[in-house]
Amino acid sequence: MTERVLIKDLAAREDGLVRVSGWVEKVRDQRYVQFVVLRDESGAVQLVNGGVLREPDPENPRSDILVPRTTTISELTHGTFITVTGELQHNERVKLGGVEIQIETIDVVAAALPDNPVADDSNIDVRLDWRFLDLRRPEQNLVFRVQTTFLHALRQVWVDRGFIEIQTPKLMASASESRAELFEVEYFEGKAFLAQSPQFFKQMAQAAGFGGIFEVGPAFRADPSFTSRHATEFTSVDAEMSWIDSHEDVMELHEELMVAGLTAVKEKHGEEIKKFFNVELEVPARPFPRIPLAEAKEIVKAEGYEVPRADADMDPEGERRISAHVKKKYGHDFVFLTDYDASIRPFYHMRHADNPQLTNSYDLIYNGTEISTGAQREHRIDVLEAQAVEKGMDPKELGFYLDFFRYGVPTHGGFGMGLNRVLMLMLKQSSIRETTYLFRGPNRLLP
Amino acid sequence: MTERVLIKDLAAREDGLVRVSGWVEKVRDQRYVQFVVLRDESGAVQLVNGGVLREPDPENPRSDILVPRTTTISELTHGTFITVTGELQHNERVKLGGVEIQIETIDVVAAALPDNPVADDSNIDVRLDWRFLDLRRPEQNLVFRVQTTFLHALRQVWVDRGFIEIQTPKLMASASESRAELFEVEYFEGKAFLAQSPQFFKQMAQAAGFGGIFEVGPAFRADPSFTSRHATEFTSVDAEMSWIDSHEDVMELHEELMVAGLTAVKEKHGEEIKKFFNVELEVPARPFPRIPLAEAKEIVKAEGYEVPRADADMDPEGERRISAHVKKKYGHDFVFLTDYDASIRPFYHMRHADNPQLTNSYDLIYNGTEISTGAQREHRIDVLEAQAVEKGMDPKELGFYLDFFRYGVPTHGGFGMGLNRVLMLMLKQSSIRETTYLFRGPNRLLP
Repeated sequence: MTERVLIKDLAAREDGLVRVSGWVEKVRDQRYVQFVVLRDESGAVQLVNGGVLREPDPENPRSDILVPRTTTISELTHGTFITVTGELQHNERVKLGGVEIQIETIDVVAAALPDNPVADDSNIDVRLDWRFLDLRRPEQNLVFRVQTTFLHALRQVWVDRGFIEIQTPKLMASASESRAELFEVEYFEGKAFLAQSPQFFKQMAQAAGFGGIFEVGPAFRADPSFTSRHATEFTSVDAEMSWIDSHEDVMELHEELMVAGLTAVKEKHGEEIKKFFNVELEVPARPFPRIPLAEAKEIVKAEGYEVPRADADMDPEGERRISAHVKKKYGHDFVFLTDYDASIRPFYHMRHADNPQLTNSYDLIYNGTEISTGAQREHRIDVLEAQAVEKGMDPKELGFYLDFFRYGVPTHGGFGMGLNRVLMLMLKQSSIRETTYLFRGPNRLLP
Repeated sequence: MTERVLIKDLAAREDGLVRVSGWVEKVRDQRYVQFVVLRDESGAVQLVNGGVLREPDPENPRSDILVPRTTTISELTHGTFITVTGELQHNERVKLGGVEIQIETIDVVAAALPDNPVADDSNIDVRLDWRFLDLRRPEQNLVFRVQTTFLHALRQVWVDRGFIEIQTPKLMASASESRAELFEVEYFEGKAFLAQSPQFFKQMAQAAGFGGIFEVGPAFRADPSFTSRHATEFTSVDAEMSWIDSHEDVMELHEELMVAGLTAVKEKHGEEIKKFFNVELEVPARPFPRIPLAEAKEIVKAEGYEVPRADADMDPEGERRISAHVKKKYGHDFVFLTDYDASIRPFYHMRHADNPQLTNSYDLIYNGTEISTGAQREHRIDVLEAQAVEKGMDPKELGFYLDFFRYGVPTHGGFGMGLNRVLMLMLKQSSIRETTYLFRGPNRLLP
C-alpha cells in the first residue's frame, strides 16, 4: 500500500495516487457528487466522489463499486476515522488548500456514534466532559503543539547551559508550602502528601552540588477556588541555580527562557496563532522592565486604583493595571515586580541585607496576570531557621529540609512557573481550562 | 569581580586570576603548605595555600593576610561551600587535571557541620537518608547528567516526528490499570486515585486526533514489594501513535528512540561512564532482535531453564537468560519479546486477527531486565468492551475510557518505559535506588 501522507504535505505533492487518514469533519451529499472534509492532526482536505450512481446500472461496469461507495459516504458520521486512497488533484478553485482527492477506496477504521455531544456553542463544562472531542478542534490541537514547541525551546536553553533535568517525587512525608492546600494520600499503613511544588527538592539539588537544574512536572494544590487561573493539578515549570549574587541572576535566566520559548513558538506557529486566535505573537525585548512592588502599587494608585488588600500584596486587578501601564509606557508584555514584602513571602526567600522587610524576590507578570514567582533562597541555616520560626512554622517538621543547609550549600535561587497560565496568556484564552490537556478542579476529576 | 569559571574549563584557560566556586572535598594541612580539593558540578581542582605562616611575622608584610587564611583553611570542614579567587597555574605534576590554583581569597558561603553522616562504605539506606550528600559523589552526578542527555535526545526524535507533548493528570476518578496497586487520595468531599500510568489519557489523545504524543512524568503504584527494580513512584516515559498497522510500528519508534538516546549519551558521557562505572556503552544496531515469547521460553528451556510460573508469562530469571542468549548469538543488548498471551496482558491490548490467544504486544528487555511494555491497542469498541468483560472488569467503571472509542478513533499503539530502570541497566547499577533522584518505597518517604 502507498505510505500515508499528512494533509499539510498534500499541496507540495504532484498529482497522483495518495493515501490519507483522519476523521470526517463534514459530508456534503449532492445529487451527482459527494464531498467529504477529512481532518488529520496536520490539517483538512476535501475528498470527492464524482460520477455518483444511486442505483446499480447494468450498462455501467463500475456501478457495483460506485454504488456501495456512495452508500458508505452517505452513512459516514461526523468524527468517523477513515483511511482513503485516491487521486490527488491540484485545483485552484478548491478553497481548502487548493487540492482535492478523488476517492478510490475508503476504509472505515472506527465509526462514530451519530449524535455529537459537543456543539460549536457548547459551554466549557460540556466541552470538558467531552474533552477528547473538544480537542479535535484545530485551535485546541494548536494549543498543544505550541506547548510542545515552547517546552522544547526552554529545555534547549537549559541543556545548553549545562543544567541537569531532575524528576522530584510527588509523594512527600510533609508539606512543602502551606498545610492549608495539601492533598492527603493513604500510604500503606501511614499517610503521604502530594507535592504542592518541587521547592524543597530542587533546593536539595543545590546542596547536592548539581548547579543548575530544571523540572517540568505536576504540582497539586487542594485549592477550593473556581477562578479561571486555578486548578488542583497543574504543570509546573521549575528551575533552580547555584552561585547567584541575587534574584537578578534568576530574572536573567527567566528572560532568556521566555525569549527562547516565544521565538520558537512565533517562528513555528505564528501564522496559525494569528489565524485561529487573532493574536500577533510578540517576542519580548530584553531586559524586561523591573519595578519594585511598592513602586508598582504607587503607580496604579496614581492612576486611580488603590489595591484593596490588608496585606502588602498586589491583587489581580493591580497586576492587570501595572501590566497595562508597562505596555503603554514601554510597549512590553512582561514586567518583573520585585522586592516583595517579607510578610507575604515564604520563609525561604532571602531578605535584603540592608532591609529585612524586603525579599530578594519577584513575580513575573505576563499580559496582566502573574505566571511565576522567583527568588534568591536563604542559604544560611541560622537565618533560615529563624525565618521559619517567625512564620509560625515548626522547625522539627521541616527537619529534613533544614538538614540540606547544615552540610553546606551554595547561594542559589530559582523560580516556578505555571505552564497552563503561560499558554492561556500567550494565546489570550479566557481560562486555563482551554490550555490544560485535562483540567482538574474541586468538582472535576473526569474524564 | 571576575566571572566564575567551571572547574572543567580550567585546563583550557591560560594562567592568571580565576574565580571558582564549589565544595570542599578534602583538606591537607602540611607544615608549610595547605591543599584543598574543591569540587563543583563539573569536576575537581587542587587549591594551594603556599608560604604558610603559623604566626604573624612582623618582618613579613603579607603575614596578617596569610595567617588568617591559614586558619580558615585548617577549619574548612568537608562539604563546606566556598568561593575562591587565585592564580591559575598549569603544572604537569598535579595529577588532578594538571592545574592548581594559588589561593588569594576565600569566601565561606556555608560551612558544613563537621560530622559526615555518609561514609564511602555506608549502606544504601544510610545513603538514601542523606541523599543530598550521596548525590555529591561524581558518579551520582553523572547519572543525572546522563538522564538529562538521554531524555533530551528522545524528545528531539519526537519533536522531529511532529509528536505532541502532553501532561496527563495524575489525579483520576478510577483506576487506569489494576485496582490492586492503587493509591487513594482524599479529594475534597470525595476520593481520587493516583494514576498508575497515563495509559487511558494517552489513548484519549488518539481519539482527539493528536497523532503521535509523548509524556515523561510520574506514575504511582502501591506496590508493597522491595525488589531492586520496583518503586511506589517512578518516572514513566510514554509515547502513543496513530495509524499503525501493528505493534511492529511501535517497536520501530522504540528502537529509533533508544538508538538516539544511547548515541547522545555515549557521545557526551561515554568516557566518564567508562571511568566511573567501568561500562563501555554500546549503541545498539537496528533492527533489535525480536523473539515471540513462546519461542523465547523454548530457547531458555532448551538451555536448561524451565520458567517456574503457572501462567504464560516470563520471569526475571527467564528474562536474564533470554537476554544472555541474544547477547551471545547476536551480540545485542536489547531484545523484543513479542506476541504475549492474551491471558497475561491487559484488556486493551489488541489480539492477533488469526489467533485471539495472542496479543499484538511486546516487552523490551535491556541487559537482562524488562524496561518497557508496548502494544497495538484495541480500537474497536465492541471488541474492547468484550475483552474488558472477559477480564472481569465492569464496563460501567470504564465508562469514560470506553467513550473515547465510541466517537471514532484511529488504529494506534504505544509503549510505557521506566526511566529509572533504563538508567540502572545502562550504567549497570544494582538498584533503581541508584538511578532515582529520590527513591520512594513502601517504607521510604524521606527526605
